[in-house]
Amino acid sequence: MIGDPISQVQAPRLLNGVFAELGTPAVLVPVHIPADSLNSILPGMLRIANLDGVLVTVPHKAAVCGHADRVSATVDVAGSANALRREPDGAWYAENFDGTGFVGGLAAAGHSARGDDVTLVGAGGAGSGIAAALLGAGAARIRVFDVHRARLHRLINRLETHWPGRAVGTGRPDLTTADLAINATPLGLHPHDPLPFDPRELPPGALVADIVMDPHETALLSTAAASGRRIHHGRHMLQHQLAAYRAFFGLDETGG
Amino acid sequence: MIGDPISQVQAPRLLNGVFAELGTPAVLVPVHIPADSLNSILPGMLRIANLDGVLVTVPHKAAVCGHADRVSATVDVAGSANALRREPDGAWYAENFDGTGFVGGLAAAGHSARGDDVTLVGAGGAGSGIAAALLGAGAARIRVFDVHRARLHRLINRLETHWPGRAVGTGRPDLTTADLAINATPLGLHPHDPLPFDPRELPPGALVADIVMDPHETALLSTAAASGRRIHHGRHMLQHQLAAYRAFFGLDETGG
Repeated sequence: MIGDPISQVQAPRLLNGVFAELGTPAVLVPVHIPADSLNSILPGMLRIANLDGVLVTVPHKAAVCGHADRVSATVDVAGSANALRREPDGAWYAENFDGTGFVGGLAAAGHSARGDDVTLVGAGGAGSGIAAALLGAGAARIRVFDVHRARLHRLINRLETHWPGRAVGTGRPDLTTADLAINATPLGLHPHDPLPFDPRELPPGALVADIVMDPHETALLSTAAASGRRIHHGRHMLQHQLAAYRAFFGLDETGG
Repeated sequence: MIGDPISQVQAPRLLNGVFAELGTPAVLVPVHIPADSLNSILPGMLRIANLDGVLVTVPHKAAVCGHADRVSATVDVAGSANALRREPDGAWYAENFDGTGFVGGLAAAGHSARGDDVTLVGAGGAGSGIAAALLGAGAARIRVFDVHRARLHRLINRLETHWPGRAVGTGRPDLTTADLAINATPLGLHPHDPLPFDPRELPPGALVADIVMDPHETALLSTAAASGRRIHHGRHMLQHQLAAYRAFFGLDETGG
C-alpha cells in the first residue's frame, strides 16, 4: 500500500487479517512513497516478480492511473484509482473503490441503484467515482451539480463517453424527481457549513446519502431524517471497501 | 530481502520472529527481483521513505554494491554484499556477512582471530569476505592461496590497500606457522574431492576451519581431527549470520 503519509493506513491490518484467516501466502506492507517520488519508485516496484497488487492512498490516487496498463471505466471517468492488480497476462489493471465501495454500501443497506434517478452534488474525486459506479451498476440517469462549472463539465463529458445520454450537469441541485440524492462534497465536516442541498425538495420516498463520515450524523442527514426521508451514512462506503478489495483480488474465490 | 529466486529464503521467517520477539514495528518481505532487473527496480526501492534495510541474496550480491552510497571495508575487498542499511544521514551502507558471520562463528566457538597467523585457501566471494573480516578483526597476517592466480592477485591488492603488509599470496598453501587454516573453496562438497590442503602440515595447536556445510564432517575436518588438530565446522558461519544481522540493524541495542 503506497501513500504519503502512510502510518495512518488501516488497510494493512485489515487485509493481513484476511490473509491469515484464508491462509493466503501474502502480506500487505505500508510503503511510504513521498509525494514527489511516485514516478521514480513505482515503475520499478511494478516489475517486482512476486508483487500481485498495490493499494493506493493520497496523494497518489490520480497519478497512479498513468502507471496502469489498463483501467476500469470507473477509473477512466474518475481519473483516480485506489488499487492496481496484476492480471493473468502480466498487465497492471487499475480500479477505483470510492465508487464501488459506495454502491456496495448501498446494496448492503438494501438499496439497489438499478433504475434509479440520481442527484449527485460534488464532481470531485469521490463524486466522479460514485457517478461512474452508479451508472455502471445500472442507475437510469444521474443529474450532477458542482459549483466548479469546468470540473462539472469535464465529468459530464467523461460520463457521456461511457454511458451516452444518462448523465447531465445542472445549474443547481435538481431534486424533484430523484430516488437517491448524494452529497459528495466536504460540506458537513464543519458545524457551520451550509447544507449541500435541501433534502426537503426531494420526493417523500427518496434516499439521502452522505459521504461525510465525521460527524456520523451530518446536518444534511438530520434534516433529511426530520423531514421523513430515509438516510444512508458515510461510513457504509468505507466499510464496503474491504469487501471490495477482497473481491478485486479474488481472495474469496480461490483462497488467494 | 531481494533475490532471484526468492521463495527458498529463510531470513524473513527468522528475522520476523526476532521483530515479533522485540516488538520492533518492522517486517522483512521477500521481494523477487529478476536477475536482469536489479538496475530498474532497486534505485526506486531505495527511495521508499520507510525502507530501512535490504538483505541481498543471489544473484544480486555483487551488483548491489554499486547501489550503495558507502560500503564497509569487507564489501570493498570482497566485491559483494549481503545487506544494505539506511544510515542516520540517509545514505545506504553495504555490509558483507560471509566474513562477519565466519568471524562471529569463530568467536562464539571461543576462538578470537586477533593476532592470528592465518592461512586461507580460496580467494572467491566467500574467501574474499573472510580474509577482509579476519584482518578487520585483528588477524596479524594472512597467507592466501588460490589456483586462480589472477583472482588471488586481485584480492591481495585489495587487502593491501586496506591493511598494508598483512596479506600475502602464496604459490601453494603455506601452513607451517599458521594458527588458523581455512578452506574457502568448494572442495569437500563431493566425496572424491581432493583435500584443499593437508592439515597434517599445520602446527599441532592449529585450528582447521571449513566453510563447506554439507557434509557436516568434510574429509578435511576428519583428517585434521584424526591428526589431533582442533576443527571448526562450516555451519557456524551460517548460524552467526542471524546474530550479525541483528547487530547490523541495531535490533538488540534499541528494540528497533
